[in-house]
Amino acid sequence: MSLTDLLFGRPLRSSEEGGERLGPSAGISVFGLDALSSAAYGPEAALTLLIPLGAAGIAYLIPITGSIIILLAIVYFSYRQTIEAYPTGGGSYTVASKNLGAFPGLLAAAALMIDYVLTAAVGISAGVGALVSAVPSLQPHTLLMCLVILLLMTILNLRGVRETGAVFIFPTYLFVGSLLITLALGLVKSLAAGGHPVPVIAPPTLHLPTAALGAWLLLKAFSSGCTAMTGVEAVSNGVRAFREPAVKSAQRTLTAVIAILIVLLAGIAFLVRAYHIGATNPGEAGYQSVLSQLIAAVAGKGAFYYITIGSILLVLALSANTAFADFPRLCRAVAEDGYLPHGFASLGRRLVYSQGVYILAALCAVLLILFGGITDRLIPLYAVGAFLAFTLSQAGMVAHWRRKGGTRSRRSMFINGVGSLATAATVIVVTIAKFADGAWVTTLLIPAMVIVMISVRRHYDHVEGEISNPIPLDLTNLRAPLVVVPILDWNKIAQKALRFALNLSAEVQALHILCEKDAGDFCKTWNRFVKEPAERAGLAVPHLVVLKSPYRFVISPIVDYVLELERNNPDRQIAVLIPELVERRWSHYFLHNQRAEWLRALLLLKGNQQIIVIVVPWHLTA
Amino acid sequence: MSLTDLLFGRPLRSSEEGGERLGPSAGISVFGLDALSSAAYGPEAALTLLIPLGAAGIAYLIPITGSIIILLAIVYFSYRQTIEAYPTGGGSYTVASKNLGAFPGLLAAAALMIDYVLTAAVGISAGVGALVSAVPSLQPHTLLMCLVILLLMTILNLRGVRETGAVFIFPTYLFVGSLLITLALGLVKSLAAGGHPVPVIAPPTLHLPTAALGAWLLLKAFSSGCTAMTGVEAVSNGVRAFREPAVKSAQRTLTAVIAILIVLLAGIAFLVRAYHIGATNPGEAGYQSVLSQLIAAVAGKGAFYYITIGSILLVLALSANTAFADFPRLCRAVAEDGYLPHGFASLGRRLVYSQGVYILAALCAVLLILFGGITDRLIPLYAVGAFLAFTLSQAGMVAHWRRKGGTRSRRSMFINGVGSLATAATVIVVTIAKFADGAWVTTLLIPAMVIVMISVRRHYDHVEGEISNPIPLDLTNLRAPLVVVPILDWNKIAQKALRFALNLSAEVQALHILCEKDAGDFCKTWNRFVKEPAERAGLAVPHLVVLKSPYRFVISPIVDYVLELERNNPDRQIAVLIPELVERRWSHYFLHNQRAEWLRALLLLKGNQQIIVIVVPWHLTA
Repeated sequence: MSLTDLLFGRPLRSSEEGGERLGPSAGISVFGLDALSSAAYGPEAALTLLIPLGAAGIAYLIPITGSIIILLAIVYFSYRQTIEAYPTGGGSYTVASKNLGAFPGLLAAAALMIDYVLTAAVGISAGVGALVSAVPSLQPHTLLMCLVILLLMTILNLRGVRETGAVFIFPTYLFVGSLLITLALGLVKSLAAGGHPVPVIAPPTLHLPTAALGAWLLLKAFSSGCTAMTGVEAVSNGVRAFREPAVKSAQRTLTAVIAILIVLLAGIAFLVRAYHIGATNPGEAGYQSVLSQLIAAVAGKGAFYYITIGSILLVLALSANTAFADFPRLCRAVAEDGYLPHGFASLGRRLVYSQGVYILAALCAVLLILFGGITDRLIPLYAVGAFLAFTLSQAGMVAHWRRKGGTRSRRSMFINGVGSLATAATVIVVTIAKFADGAWVTTLLIPAMVIVMISVRRHYDHVEGEISNPIPLDLTNLRAPLVVVPILDWNKIAQKALRFALNLSAEVQALHILCEKDAGDFCKTWNRFVKEPAERAGLAVPHLVVLKSPYRFVISPIVDYVLELERNNPDRQIAVLIPELVERRWSHYFLHNQRAEWLRALLLLKGNQQIIVIVVPWHLTA
Repeated sequence: MSLTDLLFGRPLRSSEEGGERLGPSAGISVFGLDALSSAAYGPEAALTLLIPLGAAGIAYLIPITGSIIILLAIVYFSYRQTIEAYPTGGGSYTVASKNLGAFPGLLAAAALMIDYVLTAAVGISAGVGALVSAVPSLQPHTLLMCLVILLLMTILNLRGVRETGAVFIFPTYLFVGSLLITLALGLVKSLAAGGHPVPVIAPPTLHLPTAALGAWLLLKAFSSGCTAMTGVEAVSNGVRAFREPAVKSAQRTLTAVIAILIVLLAGIAFLVRAYHIGATNPGEAGYQSVLSQLIAAVAGKGAFYYITIGSILLVLALSANTAFADFPRLCRAVAEDGYLPHGFASLGRRLVYSQGVYILAALCAVLLILFGGITDRLIPLYAVGAFLAFTLSQAGMVAHWRRKGGTRSRRSMFINGVGSLATAATVIVVTIAKFADGAWVTTLLIPAMVIVMISVRRHYDHVEGEISNPIPLDLTNLRAPLVVVPILDWNKIAQKALRFALNLSAEVQALHILCEKDAGDFCKTWNRFVKEPAERAGLAVPHLVVLKSPYRFVISPIVDYVLELERNNPDRQIAVLIPELVERRWSHYFLHNQRAEWLRALLLLKGNQQIIVIVVPWHLTA
């Protein structure tokens, strides 16, 4: 068993793809983790902005969560329809490009790609950050731990989607289960106490109000709360990864994810108000997350508290995996349309779009290294991309239904139309509210990426036009090439090259580069070892050309000579035969000059359609 | 003018070598800087070990310096003779290997190489260290400054030996001149005061004795003082760099360097005693170098003090340059005997042995980075290598004179015999005295390097035996090869490759790798575009082979097929024709898969003497 097999598993046949597919339960842990984990930070993000309102601010979480749930429901119906309409997957990109045109599609793709890279980096650093606050002695190794987790996640995802699902199921259900128990317990206690339950452990008292209520403040709180909606896109991108009936499986997964997310958001909003829990400032002493306060208030700080908090941290870290599951699929869809390098569309040895995984891992590593493993400042960049993608996806569905026609379509069109307006309004609100915090980066990055993708496509179109050949093989003017053989010395390598050259053509030129002064010596050798035997055998005698090289360069005189030969023989092909010593051991690399490699590379780069390079290897036995 | 020309100067013709040579005055600054600068740390190193003896210890510097001067004189006569006997340069390595055999030669070479790398790293970091103690705010940039100086020094040395000499002359003479003035002034004052001069600024009072005199202590002090002798080897290595008459020029340079060094050492020893100057502990507060105390005592802390101290620091930093001048020459000599890769023996564009410069710069950078730019701890590793080289060189000269015979030779043999015994004794003393401080590293590294060099030579000998061909060109059994053309799709690239294949041989096989299921499609295309036209033209029809690839690999099925074809046709050459798309812009690299490159590399690596690789490039116009 090779190391590769051990790390990544044996290669899978194309025909084994069916076995690699997921059911809804594993689907939730692969594609739903990102969406579900946002329940842990969305409400908190909104409450943090309400801090200046003091105790009065808490009440506003309910209308804000309400709006978010409505948006979520609209987006849910939209994506449910998308999955049915586009069973090969692709999400916003596919829907927007098929219905609205290439440009909106690329906008959606760019927005989502940025989001996924951010998700991966932020998820990993959030998990490590939580571990570090539990075990402060690990703090100096933050970046190293982030990179190790990134590496493990990359390897896991290269092993294939099924293995990933199997690993992630347990933490996902632990997270959902323990949070639901908390919410149910809290609800029962609240109802029993007539809406005013007594907390087991009282949350910190709230600050006095420092600001008056304003529309701008509420808008910013809503914008921040919207991060709770990121990751909803993932399932519709991954329909192809589900077991047959894939559409039904994917829809069930989406329904389950959204339903759980709505219950979590609603429950949190209700209990936060019932227990008077507000956000605390992350920078200040005594900081405690909203969920931590909530669980402690409902159930106290026993084993249950620690299990729940642990599962939240684990799921936050693992939410990075949604990006790994989805980013490569998105890239594949874009690459199949020619807007990204073809490599993104080829299945790797484990039926994974490996190149996408590599790129995501690389970009994520860059972010982690740039920010030293602490990526909190990236969170504001999130929501813009997600909502831009939602908007374009739903606008695309509107165009889809309009084209389809019929009563049912009209109703669907209405839902998607409302949805796209709502999410478009949200994009504007979120962009404005977060512009100074970093959303400006996203607004610059998205068009830049679109330009790159368009130029990739242009290049491919150009190449396609240049090489396409709709006519049969041209068999006129077949003629043996002029062969040039650079020879530095008379030895077996030179003999092998010359013999091969004589096999190919009657017109062979041997090229000798002279750095020192002894011109006569090589000519003597040549006459004795080559010219005379060839004459005796009655063969066409190879022509010896001796070039002086006053600057001791060896490669460039050869290249110059070949280019001149080509100019003087515009109707001939010039085959340059390069004898190359092949080392069996890497350690021998430095013992021989790499002139053959350089010469080959330079001839290909500086050459043209007439010049062909022939490598005649000499294999060392030692 | 290209960037390369601007940085490194225009290329020099081989015939311009004469103009690049040095006279004695520039020779001192290129090859003597290392030796001369050791006057700045040798006496200090000895005095530091005498600190425990208190004021009584200072007196012992005179016998220690006396022994060092005697050693120096012996080594001088030896190298003077060596220069005459070996006018092509090479120093210890050449002398030892020509007279004592390859193994002692390699021992000397390894010892010197280690010394030069250490000299370069320690010199640069000493210079930067001095600058940092003058301008403490630069301290965080220590490593960066070291690397920048290393880079500048590398570029300067790649520009050629003459330019280096020109740049270094001024600081060298400033250093020598100001130190000689100090010594002369001190001597006059001492004599005028009857041996007890009054210092202008009194040196710090000395500690009371904390240890009694012992032989071991004196031995250690002597060993440390011996660092004053490093760098003496350089001139004899560089004879080739001198202007004709080269031997005379080199001898004059050596005489000047040694004479100045002896005067400096003797003068320092005398004045240190006259002014009661002892070393201070570098780690402790109030540290002041011996030379600084001496200059202040003789001349006060005026402008002269600062000029002299400045020139000392500059020369220490520039002494690294001796390594750059000599290491490449040493490597050249070893490479010409086949013990190092041939590349070390080829002259670069500016008539410098560029590869040696690169390697020295790289090793030096590694040391600087490993030690963060503070390489004090490397100083103990120095002297072992230098004295081992001295010993082997003189032992070699003994053998040389014995072979030559005659009265004059007998006298020379006696001098060198005494010298080699004295330096051999010093090697043993230095190794034992400094073993725990780091000399053990040198004693491990030297044999390891010798083993590597011997195995390099063995490899070359083996290759030479394998490829040498003392017989004329064999012209029997010339036969066109079997040609294999991998074709993924029918386009102009495939057409060009097929046309070239038909030029070469009547036996052409086209290889199509099938990853998806549609086997029939390509066969149809093939029949229509290739088979039928070839049949109509009455040509041998290329044979189509379709290989299925269930794991979606493209390259390995081709390689496997070619290897099998080779096994089935043991008497034929197999030419694999690889169509390759050549991108003109680097940014297009990622847009096309690099399969052609991989296939070529794998075929060369896994292939054998029968397999030839032909690259048919397709040049994109965009």
